[in-house]
Amino acid sequence: MENVVKNTSVVFVGAGNLATHLARALHKAGFRIQQVYSRTEEAARVLAKCVDAGFTTDLEALSADAALYIVSLKDAAFTELLPEIVAGREHQGMWVHTAGSIPMSVWKNSGVERYGVFYPMQTFSKQREVDFSQIPLFVEANRPSDVQMLKEIAGCLTTKVMEADSEQRKSLHLAAVFACNFTNHMYALTEELLQKYNLPFDVMLPLIDETARKVHELHPKNAQTGPAVRYDENVMNAHLRMLEGEPCMQEIYKLISQSIHILDKKNNDEYHKL
Amino acid sequence: MENVVKNTSVVFVGAGNLATHLARALHKAGFRIQQVYSRTEEAARVLAKCVDAGFTTDLEALSADAALYIVSLKDAAFTELLPEIVAGREHQGMWVHTAGSIPMSVWKNSGVERYGVFYPMQTFSKQREVDFSQIPLFVEANRPSDVQMLKEIAGCLTTKVMEADSEQRKSLHLAAVFACNFTNHMYALTEELLQKYNLPFDVMLPLIDETARKVHELHPKNAQTGPAVRYDENVMNAHLRMLEGEPCMQEIYKLISQSIHILDKKNNDEYHKL
Repeated sequence: MENVVKNTSVVFVGAGNLATHLARALHKAGFRIQQVYSRTEEAARVLAKCVDAGFTTDLEALSADAALYIVSLKDAAFTELLPEIVAGREHQGMWVHTAGSIPMSVWKNSGVERYGVFYPMQTFSKQREVDFSQIPLFVEANRPSDVQMLKEIAGCLTTKVMEADSEQRKSLHLAAVFACNFTNHMYALTEELLQKYNLPFDVMLPLIDETARKVHELHPKNAQTGPAVRYDENVMNAHLRMLEGEPCMQEIYKLISQSIHILDKKNNDEYHKL
Repeated sequence: MENVVKNTSVVFVGAGNLATHLARALHKAGFRIQQVYSRTEEAARVLAKCVDAGFTTDLEALSADAALYIVSLKDAAFTELLPEIVAGREHQGMWVHTAGSIPMSVWKNSGVERYGVFYPMQTFSKQREVDFSQIPLFVEANRPSDVQMLKEIAGCLTTKVMEADSEQRKSLHLAAVFACNFTNHMYALTEELLQKYNLPFDVMLPLIDETARKVHELHPKNAQTGPAVRYDENVMNAHLRMLEGEPCMQEIYKLISQSIHILDKKNNDEYHKL
């Protein structure tokens, strides 16, 4: 552990939510963050300051001697900037990206020799600290020795280090959209509804927490409660009438209730064909 | 507190998930559960046994001298059975139901003199213990003195006792469907996807937990992450292609992504008009 910390100086390309949380976690674990690049000076400076690093807004000024380059940009920006990022740096260090949805093969014809993926599967918001030790971190690299190196680095941050190839990571990312992004939107719609009725969102927190806790013990399918799984048409129709001024929420209510009912009644193979 | 516990003997009409958890919580708090009614003998006997009560499958054999009758049936069964439940018992004790979606007025012409609602807003599964002390419990009654009595009873179970009229409760119930039932279905679809790719559901638990924890601090709208709120069309289109064999999930993906995007871009007033 100590060796990998001592020997791995890190450059960050990108200073968004994920880069910020990852850079801070690595810094806290003792890694030297050499430099932070961002197109916007403010973002680069803010992150650089909090991890004792230098910063630049010029890709040509990227440090040449880091052991690890972590590219954490929006997917579109990454693909667009890749040639510029790696130009003339083919023999430098190890290059990884952090996006669940981008395959490792994106590096294949970039000229870079050692590359891989370092994907922490978590939702990051700048305003909120996260505990990295509980975050599953999926790694992949083109060389077995670099898989090992990424595992060691990841192991300094979390106990949940796993190898995943690009296909698996793509699937994990899609599943995470349902588990996190879509779940959070259900919370957002809850808040919209409560605001409309002048009720505080806080009142839902015990229910939200218990809903999350339940699936630690039960399969979500077996944890399902409510009017849709009981197929209580009286209640569902009353709810749809209450949502008459909200066509988008009404549509969501219909579609998800239908999906709950189908998943409950049919076996899984059948569900996938519907 | 002690007085209300000593003076309130309880009869349960219904032995489903909610009745089971509520009866056990009341029993644990020292209340005497006099009797449990259920149409199915097995359900009545099992619950009665675990709260030291008698049981019956015959509505005519309901105890005549309980202080509180808690009716916890499916909405349709409740409405259908109500005349039979209360026939000849108009002057007995206090009658409450536990359904968020049924207004108190359902009791109005039943002949019963003292009635109300006792609505614990939580998701109950038989297989799982819940901590009642964290559950918001909403009460309503036709007499102010009975509101007070229900508040005292509820106060023996939880610190979160609130009054809510039938309109507010209906809104809370609808919001709870989004916060709990629909959220749980997102977990269920996550598990479906992971099973398809031979990945374990457990790997998502840290993400699920953090997604729930975040909204204790941030408004859900501000906690939103992922491709839809970034409007990353590359990623969304790739996900939709992955879901091509799953028309129902594909439709859900499209609709929720669209809703996330709209809620992010427009202000709330505009969202409600869409």
